Amino acid sequence: MPDVAVLGASGYAGALAAALLWRHPSFELAALTSRSDAGRRLDALYPHHRVPLTMEELDLARHAEVDAAIVAYPHHAAAPVVAALRARDVRVVDLSADFRLRDQATYEQWYGPHEAPEMIADAVYGLPELGYRDAIAEADVVANPGCFPTAALLGLAPLARAGLIGDLVIDAKTGVSGAGRAATDRTHFVSVDENVSPYGIAGHRHAPEIDQELELLGAPVTCTFVPHLVPLDQGELISAYVRPSRAVSQQELDELFAEAYDDEPFVELTTVAPGVRDVRETNFCRISVHHDARSDRVLVFSAIDNLWKGTSSQAVQNLNLMFGLPEQEGIL
Amino acid sequence: MPDVAVLGASGYAGALAAALLWRHPSFELAALTSRSDAGRRLDALYPHHRVPLTMEELDLARHAEVDAAIVAYPHHAAAPVVAALRARDVRVVDLSADFRLRDQATYEQWYGPHEAPEMIADAVYGLPELGYRDAIAEADVVANPGCFPTAALLGLAPLARAGLIGDLVIDAKTGVSGAGRAATDRTHFVSVDENVSPYGIAGHRHAPEIDQELELLGAPVTCTFVPHLVPLDQGELISAYVRPSRAVSQQELDELFAEAYDDEPFVELTTVAPGVRDVRETNFCRISVHHDARSDRVLVFSAIDNLWKGTSSQAVQNLNLMFGLPEQEGIL
Amino acid sequence: MPDVAVLGASGYAGALAAALLWRHPSFELAALTSRSDAGRRLDALYPHHRVPLTMEELDLARHAEVDAAIVAYPHHAAAPVVAALRARDVRVVDLSADFRLRDQATYEQWYGPHEAPEMIADAVYGLPELGYRDAIAEADVVANPGCFPTAALLGLAPLARAGLIGDLVIDAKTGVSGAGRAATDRTHFVSVDENVSPYGIAGHRHAPEIDQELELLGAPVTCTFVPHLVPLDQGELISAYVRPSRAVSQQELDELFAEAYDDEPFVELTTVAPGVRDVRETNFCRISVHHDARSDRVLVFSAIDNLWKGTSSQAVQNLNLMFGLPEQEGIL
Amino acid sequence: MPDVAVLGASGYAGALAAALLWRHPSFELAALTSRSDAGRRLDALYPHHRVPLTMEELDLARHAEVDAAIVAYPHHAAAPVVAALRARDVRVVDLSADFRLRDQATYEQWYGPHEAPEMIADAVYGLPELGYRDAIAEADVVANPGCFPTAALLGLAPLARAGLIGDLVIDAKTGVSGAGRAATDRTHFVSVDENVSPYGIAGHRHAPEIDQELELLGAPVTCTFVPHLVPLDQGELISAYVRPSRAVSQQELDELFAEAYDDEPFVELTTVAPGVRDVRETNFCRISVHHDARSDRVLVFSAIDNLWKGTSSQAVQNLNLMFGLPEQEGIL
Repeated sequence: MPDVAVLGASGYAGALAAALLWRHPSFELAALTSRSDAGRRLDALYPHHRVPLTMEELDLARHAEVDAAIVAYPHHAAAPVVAALRARDVRVVDLSADFRLRDQATYEQWYGPHEAPEMIADAVYGLPELGYRDAIAEADVVANPGCFPTAALLGLAPLARAGLIGDLVIDAKTGVSGAGRAATDRTHFVSVDENVSPYGIAGHRHAPEIDQELELLGAPVTCTFVPHLVPLDQGELISAYVRPSRAVSQQELDELFAEAYDDEPFVELTTVAPGVRDVRETNFCRISVHHDARSDRVLVFSAIDNLWKGTSSQAVQNLNLMFGLPEQEGIL
Repeated sequence: MPDVAVLGASGYAGALAAALLWRHPSFELAALTSRSDAGRRLDALYPHHRVPLTMEELDLARHAEVDAAIVAYPHHAAAPVVAALRARDVRVVDLSADFRLRDQATYEQWYGPHEAPEMIADAVYGLPELGYRDAIAEADVVANPGCFPTAALLGLAPLARAGLIGDLVIDAKTGVSGAGRAATDRTHFVSVDENVSPYGIAGHRHAPEIDQELELLGAPVTCTFVPHLVPLDQGELISAYVRPSRAVSQQELDELFAEAYDDEPFVELTTVAPGVRDVRETNFCRISVHHDARSDRVLVFSAIDNLWKGTSSQAVQNLNLMFGLPEQEGIL
Repeated sequence: MPDVAVLGASGYAGALAAALLWRHPSFELAALTSRSDAGRRLDALYPHHRVPLTMEELDLARHAEVDAAIVAYPHHAAAPVVAALRARDVRVVDLSADFRLRDQATYEQWYGPHEAPEMIADAVYGLPELGYRDAIAEADVVANPGCFPTAALLGLAPLARAGLIGDLVIDAKTGVSGAGRAATDRTHFVSVDENVSPYGIAGHRHAPEIDQELELLGAPVTCTFVPHLVPLDQGELISAYVRPSRAVSQQELDELFAEAYDDEPFVELTTVAPGVRDVRETNFCRISVHHDARSDRVLVFSAIDNLWKGTSSQAVQNLNLMFGLPEQEGIL
Repeated sequence: MPDVAVLGASGYAGALAAALLWRHPSFELAALTSRSDAGRRLDALYPHHRVPLTMEELDLARHAEVDAAIVAYPHHAAAPVVAALRARDVRVVDLSADFRLRDQATYEQWYGPHEAPEMIADAVYGLPELGYRDAIAEADVVANPGCFPTAALLGLAPLARAGLIGDLVIDAKTGVSGAGRAATDRTHFVSVDENVSPYGIAGHRHAPEIDQELELLGAPVTCTFVPHLVPLDQGELISAYVRPSRAVSQQELDELFAEAYDDEPFVELTTVAPGVRDVRETNFCRISVHHDARSDRVLVFSAIDNLWKGTSSQAVQNLNLMFGLPEQEGIL
C-alpha cells in the first residue's frame, strides 16, 4: 500500500487531505507535518476529522521516505519543498499555485519570483475531467487546480471546446474556508455574518489560471472574474455569463454538456440550477447550463465544495489516478 | 400632519413601512390593514418594530379617509386598490410592480393582464436619485421601484447617461427577506443555510424594469440579470459588469460618479467595494466603480438593504417628497 | 442481504435513513414511501443524498415484503403502521415517539390516545449505550429515542447509575432541522437567523422520556428541560446542570465516565467542552463532564447531530444490532 | 451641551458608543481615541456607524478637556485612565469590569491586582433599573455592568427582592460580538458557523458580579453560570432556572414582574418567551417568567442586545441620567 505524507497538515486543506487519506482503503497516511502546530495531534485542532496522528516539524530525511506527498503550503513556500521531494523521488500533489501556470512570466507577474522554475514544465494540471487524466496517471508532480478554476473550467470546458465563448464574465461566490484558517479582520465572524461583498477586484490570481486552460481548450479569452465572500463555511458557486460567438440553442447546449460529462463520475448535470448545499462535503461538481434568449447569453452555474473538489478531495482523486487506483476510491 | 394608512401591513414591506411612519415626526400613522392578520396587533407579529396598532380588514369607507397610503399588496392585487384610493383622492405610494412598467404590453408579458391600465400613464417611478425628484413631489401615484432595479439603476445611471454601457451583465445577491414572509420550501432555514443558489434564471421580472429605466437614461440595452439567494436576512448586492462602449479611465469613472452623487443624501461612493452590512437597516445605497484594465470592463458594486432603500424606507423618502418634507426626515 | 424499506422517506429523518441504507454494505434499500411526495425521486427532493429511487404510496402488500422497515412517521400515525408491519413479520425501527414511553398513561398525557397500546410492552428503547444492546438485537420493534433524550441520557447515565443526580436542569440547543421539513413561520429563515429563543416552555414531550430512562437507571428525578432554537441546520447540544446528591470530585467524575464509555464506539469523552461542529454528520456523541466547585454542581455537555445520532444513523445502528452486523457498519 | 470623549473607540463597544453620541441631540461627541487605530477615521473601520471623526492617540491634556468620557478599555487598563480622568474632574462611564465589584479581594481573585483600588468605593453600578437611578445621577464614576449581569439581573431582580431564589442556574447564549473585535481562532467564521459550544466553564468573571448584586437585592446565592457561543453577531439570551424557596404561582410571578417593571421604559414583559431578534439594536431588555409546575421551577428568559443594553446604549442611558437628560434620549 503506498505511503503518503501530508506536509502542511494544520491548514484547512492539509487537514482535510489527511482525513481523507486516513480513511482511504488503499493509501497509508504515513506522516503529518506542520510548522505552526508541530507536536499537536490533528484531532486536537480538528476534532471532526478524527485523525489521531501527531504533526511534526518537517524533516525530509524521514518525511521523504514515502511514495507520495500532498503539499499544502502557501505559494512560494511550496516550490522548494516540491523540488526537495522530487529529488528524493517522491511523487507530489501540490495544492499551491506554484505549478499551475505554465508560463513563468505570467506566474511571476501575479505571484512574484518563482522558486523552482525548472520544474514548471513537468507539472501536470490536476483537473482530470479537462483531459488530463492520462497525464496525471504518469505525472510526478500534479499541480492541483485552484478552487475557482476547478468550478469555472468544469462549467466552461464544453463551451470552450465548441468555440462558443465570445466573451466571458465569471461572478464567483465562496464560503469563508476559502480564505484559510488565519484569523483576520476579514474572517472574523462579525465581518462575514449578514454580509456579502466582492474582493480581489484589482485582479484575482485565479483569473490567469482560468484563461490559460480555456485557451488550451481552444478559447482564447481574457475573462472578467470577481469573487464574492458569502456567509457560509464551505461551498463555491460559479455564475458564468458567456456571450456566444454564434447562435446556439438550449438543445445544442444540453447535448454538448451531456457529451462532455455523461461518463464523468464526479460531474453532475442538472436542469435546476445547483446550490452549494447539493455538493457539500463531496467531490462532485454540479452544473447547469441555460440559454437566456432575452439577452442571448449562455449562463453556466457550477457548484463545488471549495475544500473538497476545489482542493483536497480532488488531490486524492489525482493520487488515485497516479497510483492506478479506481478514481473514486476513498472520496465517494 | 398628514395621515397615512399602510395597506397590507402584515408582510415584511408593509410592516417596516408602518414602523417607519410610526416614528416619523411629520406623518400620522392612521391605520393598518391586513387580510391574513386582521385583528392582530402589529407588535405581536413583529415585536422588534414595536408598533402597538391593530391591523384591520380593509374598509375603504374608513381607510381612504387619509391623505396618503402605502400599498403593500402583491402585483395584480395592488392596481384596483390603488385605483379605488385615487377615486377618493388619496395619494399613493405603491410597493407592487403594477405601475413600474410604462408599457402595458411589457407589463402583461411579465405579469399577466393589468387591472388598471388607464392609470399607468400617471404613475411616477419612485427613484428620486434618477431624476424623478420633482415629478414625485407632484405625483398622486408613485410606483416604488423594485429592490434589484433600485440598486442596479443607482449603480448604472452615471454610465448610462454618459453613453458608456455597451453590454451589461448584472449578477445580484439577495437576502431571504426579499422572498417575503411566506413560509415555503425555499425560505425554510435548512434550504437557505450554508447555501447559495441562483433563481429566476428563465427571466426575472426586474430585468425589463431595469432595461426601461436605462433606456430612458440613454442606454438602450437588454441586460442579462440573474439574482442569487444568499444566507442572510436583509441586504442586496448588485455586481454589474459593463463592457464600455468606448475607452474609459478610472479617473473618468470617478468623476462621473462624483458628479452624479455628490449631492445625493442617500448615495455613498466608496473606493473599497461595499458589503451589505455597511447599509443594513438604512436608506443608503453604497456604490463603488472600478475599471478592470485586464479585461477592459467597468465593474460596479451597489449595496442596499432590500427592505429599506429597496422597499419601505424608499417609500417614505417618496412620501417625504410628495408632502414637501425634508427628504431625509424619519429615515436617517 | 436483508431488505429494508423506509416508510415516510420525504422528511428529513426518513430521507437520511434512506441515504445511509443506500450506501450500507449489508442492507438492501428495497423501497421508499411517502404520502406527500409519492412519484418523485428522492434525489429530486434531496440532491445531496444522491438516492435515485422513487417514492411510492404505501402499499403494505408490496412494502411489507421486506425483512425490516424504518418508520419515519409522525407520532400517532406511526403506531398503526408499525402494527401492520409486525402482523406481516417485518422487524421495525420506529422513529416516532409512539413506543418510547413504557407507561400508556404517560404517553396519553403528552401525546393523546395511543393507537396500538398492546404493542408497547414489546418495544425496546433503542439506545444501545444505555444497556439495551442485547435487547435490541432480539427486538422486533425498536423505539428509536428522541434526539434530546439521546444526548441527555448519554450525558447523564453515568451520574444516574452512581446515584449522583440530586436535582437536574437540562438546557438544550438545537438546529432547525429538528423542527422538521414543514415550512412554517418558525422555520422561516428570517425567523431563525440572528435569533435564539426557547420553546416548549409549557412542557416538552422529551422530558418524560428522559425521566423514564433516568429512573430505570436508578435516578428518580423530574427534570427541568427547556430546548432552544439556534441558527444552524444540524446539531444539538445538551447542557445539563446536576446538583450532586453527595460530594463528588472531578477525578471521580472522570473515572465514572471513562468506565461507562471507554468501550463505546460512538461516545467520545473530551476535557474541552464539545461543540456541535465536532459531531456534524456523524453518529458520535461527544461529552465532557466538569465539577463546578464554586457552586458545587456537576456540568455535563453532550453534543450530537440531531439527524444522525439523534435520529437516523442511530436507527441504522439499531438495525445493525438487530441483524447481527457490526454495530458501526455503514455509519462510521 | 456637554462634551463627551470616547476612549478606546476602535473596539465594538467604543465604536457603538461613539455612534450613539454622534447622533445624540444633547451631547457633543468631542473626541475619539484609540491605540491601535490612531489616525484612522471611525467610518473607515465601521462604515455602518457613519461617524466621520478621526481617532487619536490618547493625550490627557486635550482629551480630558471634556465634561464626560466613556472609557472602553480592557480591564486593568481602564482603572488608571479612569483615575486620571477623575483627577481632571471628568465624569466617567467605565465599560470595563474594573469598578463593578465592590470587594477588592473578589476583584483580584477573578481579574488580578486592581490598579486603582482607592476609587472602588465611589463607583456606582450602572444598572438604573436595579435601584441605582438616583445614585447614577450623582455619580462621578459609573461602572457599566457586564452584558450577562445586565440581562441576568434584570430577569432575576423581582425574584431576588421577593426572597424567592432558592437555587440558581443561569445558562447564557451570546453572539460573537461579545468576544470583541480581536480576530482569533475562536472568532473565526468557520469556528462559529454551524456550531454552538459552552465556554468559561472553569468560572466566568460575570458570575461573581451577578452574585454581588443578587445579594444586595436580598438573595445570597452562588449561581451556576455557563455562557455559550451561538452563531449570530449581536444578541444575548439568559435562561435562568430558579428553584423557588417557597411555593409560588404563575399569577404571583406575573404580579411581581409587573410591579417591578411596568414603569421602566426599557424593560418589556412578554408572555411568549423572547428571542434576541426582538431586541436587536435596541436598549430594551425583554423578559418572560414562567412557573414550571412539573418540576416546580421558575424559568426566566431575558433577552438583550449585548452591544446595546449589554454595553454601549446602557452607557448612554447612564450618561443621560448623570447629566439630567431624559433617560431615553438618543437611544430609543
